Amino acid sequence: MKKGQELYKKAKTIIPGGNMFLSKRPEMHLPDLWPSYFSKAQGCAVWDLDNKKYLDLGIMGIGTNTLGYGNKEVDDAVKKIINKGNLSTLNCPEEVILAERLIEINPWADMVRLARTGGEANAISIRIARAASGKDKIAICGYHGWHDWYLSVNHNDKGDDLSQHLLKDLSISGVPKSLMNTVYPFTYNNFDELSEIVNNNEIGVIKMEVKRNFEPEHNFIKKVRELATKNNIVLIFDECTSGFRETFGGIFKKYDVEPDIAMFGKTLGNGYAITAVVGKKNIMEAAQNSFMSSTFWSERIGPTAALKTLEIMEREKSWDRITHLGNYLRSGWKNCAQANKVPIEIFGIPSISSYIFNHKDSKKFKTYITQEFLKQGFLATTSFYASTAHSEKILDQYLDVFNNILIKIKNCIDDIDTIDELLEGPVAHDGFKRLN
Amino acid sequence: MKKGQELYKKAKTIIPGGNMFLSKRPEMHLPDLWPSYFSKAQGCAVWDLDNKKYLDLGIMGIGTNTLGYGNKEVDDAVKKIINKGNLSTLNCPEEVILAERLIEINPWADMVRLARTGGEANAISIRIARAASGKDKIAICGYHGWHDWYLSVNHNDKGDDLSQHLLKDLSISGVPKSLMNTVYPFTYNNFDELSEIVNNNEIGVIKMEVKRNFEPEHNFIKKVRELATKNNIVLIFDECTSGFRETFGGIFKKYDVEPDIAMFGKTLGNGYAITAVVGKKNIMEAAQNSFMSSTFWSERIGPTAALKTLEIMEREKSWDRITHLGNYLRSGWKNCAQANKVPIEIFGIPSISSYIFNHKDSKKFKTYITQEFLKQGFLATTSFYASTAHSEKILDQYLDVFNNILIKIKNCIDDIDTIDELLEGPVAHDGFKRLN
Repeated sequence: MKKGQELYKKAKTIIPGGNMFLSKRPEMHLPDLWPSYFSKAQGCAVWDLDNKKYLDLGIMGIGTNTLGYGNKEVDDAVKKIINKGNLSTLNCPEEVILAERLIEINPWADMVRLARTGGEANAISIRIARAASGKDKIAICGYHGWHDWYLSVNHNDKGDDLSQHLLKDLSISGVPKSLMNTVYPFTYNNFDELSEIVNNNEIGVIKMEVKRNFEPEHNFIKKVRELATKNNIVLIFDECTSGFRETFGGIFKKYDVEPDIAMFGKTLGNGYAITAVVGKKNIMEAAQNSFMSSTFWSERIGPTAALKTLEIMEREKSWDRITHLGNYLRSGWKNCAQANKVPIEIFGIPSISSYIFNHKDSKKFKTYITQEFLKQGFLATTSFYASTAHSEKILDQYLDVFNNILIKIKNCIDDIDTIDELLEGPVAHDGFKRLN
Repeated sequence: MKKGQELYKKAKTIIPGGNMFLSKRPEMHLPDLWPSYFSKAQGCAVWDLDNKKYLDLGIMGIGTNTLGYGNKEVDDAVKKIINKGNLSTLNCPEEVILAERLIEINPWADMVRLARTGGEANAISIRIARAASGKDKIAICGYHGWHDWYLSVNHNDKGDDLSQHLLKDLSISGVPKSLMNTVYPFTYNNFDELSEIVNNNEIGVIKMEVKRNFEPEHNFIKKVRELATKNNIVLIFDECTSGFRETFGGIFKKYDVEPDIAMFGKTLGNGYAITAVVGKKNIMEAAQNSFMSSTFWSERIGPTAALKTLEIMEREKSWDRITHLGNYLRSGWKNCAQANKVPIEIFGIPSISSYIFNHKDSKKFKTYITQEFLKQGFLATTSFYASTAHSEKILDQYLDVFNNILIKIKNCIDDIDTIDELLEGPVAHDGFKRLN
């Protein structure tokens, strides 16, 4: 057995669920065969515990590393600040400088709070928005983390509402049932549904991802803004995933709409833990009426990494580059699929592109693709998070392999080959699942 | 105006509440005069933005840096891991090694989850315990962070219950009111009160700090354990503050009692963001029935710093050293106070020692002490968090200054001097307060 799988086998006996981040759970990619752990990462290359090198044409840390792994400038800035001390009894000036910088990038906003994880940034923004509106009820669309406030949606009458918002088969044991009917989910692009929720409940906050898989239709984002304004509702855009991927800041800038609060995370520190809540003064000041405080929100690596990452992203216009690379791969996928007559559907922000097979065996095909790419030295699944460390040349290498895999899949579709025989391990999970 | 105060003035206009961590808010120490920000920290020395050096005989990052600021071995380990890459699509092996190490240190436990802040570790342990017990109601004692589940205590009928648990004048706007009467506070050492709460409510979880300011009386900790066991209640010890300060692990080891879950934080990574939830398998496995997942819980600096910190703490028996230093300073405080006939009361874990003046002007005296120590090059208030970077020699220097300050305070008590005239700025805050 490979070292990574061996370590993961042990991990499952001492870490409930095996790891800390569901999207990096080996079963989500290639059960029993995924390298699972890395020893080194540089650019878009990752080395496993057996020192085997892979090119990451997959999730790139789930979008944390727009500037590639181990970006020298960011790492040097962090190491320099470690030499000066990461923490002390006094505050670090970088938190103020970062707050200023985020306001510069978001001229509609006046104030900033920082945290270290996306779940925290989500909970802070909800606390502030509830405090500012004086109302507890929230309408949500999209993925917003693991905290009680959000998961409580599944306590509502319908029972499994979050299944539409990225989390299939979600179990939410331990979320207090008294939160039932405090948060109402709405479907992306369904303005009537949201209006009805607002009309029938004392909604104080609307929180949504501006765009994930599909384009807004019929001025959806603008209409949501108008509805919020008209009803004195605090509008929050969760840009943890989408931020800095199509613009230098929120993706909402593309739609000529401004929120009351926006959150940024993921790529803000290029792989270092830092997230931010940015908002209008009249809303953000409500934070002063609520206790939100944490020892490690005052550490220095986070804001230092963010300041350098912002500098590089702006200088390199990284969002243009990763959008180009994403579109480049989409064309490649499309061409290969058409050439091989394999039905795929492509979706997502260009720099976070995904595809699915329109076929009953789509989950098995996805697993097979990951399995075959791994053999050829790629960490790849059916999603691609672009970074500036990728290149057209690397994407071309990937597409050659992709084309060969599609030939095999086409044979399976045509019953010349059998997908079950091609798979060397179990089918990948596609959602939350208890491990044995 | 000094650079630090200038920056803080700006910070208050762009960060609601001024900073990210209430205990580091300048108004908590010396309004208008506190250096507020650091440029460098090394050992027990801190340099402000004007490059003035201070010795930290105060809160030492609120207990994050038992091995001193900028500990070379820990920093080197972190920089080395940065060279290998902080994050990738694969998991870092250090999270598994740290989980193993924490179980070694806690033989009563079997499984571990990691997070990056104390608030998160608290919320994770509560989620797991609620899931395991199948009950939502909790009894708490002590300080457990900023999350909804905890602050909701102040929605209960009495209104201001958290004032007894370290948070005075706490405002909790934005915490959903539907959480009312899900969490019940009990007073430390009041077993009858806790028994009554358990008898009258469907309590699934008891969470407490094992010791903060006072010793347990009449076998309090053991009785709580028995009550929890008898009633199928999950017992959680929050060791974020107390861990590794009197033993190599939880302070509960001193009382021959084991919890079902313990949390560690603060000093676990010697100034790097890492916190841990450690518990028994039958309880921890309930995590598998609930979604808890975060991108930055998979970063590598946190567990790397923790592994090196644990190694050094064990080698140096740091808990013995800091306990000795804490007791050394307590003796000094006591002797100075007796010599000057100033009535003080000393309390806390030895390595986190504090004192208060038994006098109506105690808040003013505290402010004055901070003011005078600052002039003599010390960051010091009425609390002392010991680290291995402190020494008897430094404590003696501090005690000389302390003695001189007490002479002045004695004069105020005797109406020879007037404290209001000695203070050069406003009185320090002693709790949560809205800033203007």
